[in-house]
Amino acid sequence: MPLPAFLLVSMRQAHHQLTVFSSQGRSLYEFTRELRDWVSSTDIQVGMLTVFIQHTSASLLIQENADPTVRADLERFLARLVPDGDPIFQHRQEGPDDMSAHVRTALTQIYLVIPVVGGAPVLGTWQGVFLYEHRYEPQRRKVLLHLIGE
Amino acid sequence: MPLPAFLLVSMRQAHHQLTVFSSQGRSLYEFTRELRDWVSSTDIQVGMLTVFIQHTSASLLIQENADPTVRADLERFLARLVPDGDPIFQHRQEGPDDMSAHVRTALTQIYLVIPVVGGAPVLGTWQGVFLYEHRYEPQRRKVLLHLIGE
Amino acid sequence: MPLPAFLLVSMRQAHHQLTVFSSQGRSLYEFTRELRDWVSSTDIQVGMLTVFIQHTSASLLIQENADPTVRADLERFLARLVPDGDPIFQHRQEGPDDMSAHVRTALTQIYLVIPVVGGAPVLGTWQGVFLYEHRYEPQRRKVLLHLIGE
Repeated sequence: MPLPAFLLVSMRQAHHQLTVFSSQGRSLYEFTRELRDWVSSTDIQVGMLTVFIQHTSASLLIQENADPTVRADLERFLARLVPDGDPIFQHRQEGPDDMSAHVRTALTQIYLVIPVVGGAPVLGTWQGVFLYEHRYEPQRRKVLLHLIGE
Repeated sequence: MPLPAFLLVSMRQAHHQLTVFSSQGRSLYEFTRELRDWVSSTDIQVGMLTVFIQHTSASLLIQENADPTVRADLERFLARLVPDGDPIFQHRQEGPDDMSAHVRTALTQIYLVIPVVGGAPVLGTWQGVFLYEHRYEPQRRKVLLHLIGE
Repeated sequence: MPLPAFLLVSMRQAHHQLTVFSSQGRSLYEFTRELRDWVSSTDIQVGMLTVFIQHTSASLLIQENADPTVRADLERFLARLVPDGDPIFQHRQEGPDDMSAHVRTALTQIYLVIPVVGGAPVLGTWQGVFLYEHRYEPQRRKVLLHLIGE
């Protein structure tokens, strides 16, 4: 008895490179909508989504997206915790925000993993997905999206 | 020559929503056993397990589970690093533990990824899986489990 | 009409246990080459790679691998942020680096997730994969690699 064809080809993968332009320099840039749109375009209903940033001076973060003061407070906290131009830093070729950007990245994340159910990432009501630019100057950041599922 | 049927359907997924009640408020709550039990119930032997918390003021953490002083010390460290009611915080609608909970979450993780081998997460001898509640009051926290494998 | 056989068996998994010897004690140890070699050996072209360390006093980190002062600066920063032998720590059976190693691990990561495209992890130009040993003494650290893809 032949098995239905969809069993044979059901599990599959998709990947896509997204560019996020951090136009204002150091700040948080939400790209939840771009992420949802891409997941939706793959037609994968259930799976596992990975978001990976190919840099070491910018982070990915899932945070509260309703009240912008959360991001402002987080930035103030990190600016105090990891002082730009800290005299203990020797790596400063690209300015006072060079090494602090690496440390901020080490203390946060450069990849996110989010289950997909019902064709969408299972983000909670208040969760948004952000690129956190740690350099002062605007940058074009490459973010790789990968989804495996069916 | 027909291929054996198990090849056709071997790779599959399972997902489940777990609720963890942080009954004592700010503290670490181990749910390693619930996680192992659910993985075991799926009958998936080899795969990749994702644990994702749908909130921005509680974390997931894999830590030493033998000596409870590790968790007490970690809490003392974070309480000093991220002071509740810090005057630099403007987001304080829900009290002095509101913004500090967001910062603690940003500095830790809201998802875990653990390979599964032999029908169980490959945790080391001393590794336990915890929900880290950062708010003072008890909360019901939604944790999504996702497993892909065969 | 029969479907081609490669559809039936294309999605698959591989896993491997790697041992990283932190021969100089507290420091960062790059193992990007070992990781690339293992991915290459699986013949999986597109997939999702998980790297998981089965310990709670050493981390995994993706960081700048060109200039060694980045790692030295990161270590100086963490040594100041999480003082060894901090009087607030009660868990000190194994010495002043015992609890600080757990805190450093909580503030960084014990697993990495990296998409694989073209038979290789999609690391950026300056990204290297490191084991971050937080104990003073050399240790043999078990790192589990898992790859799912096709």
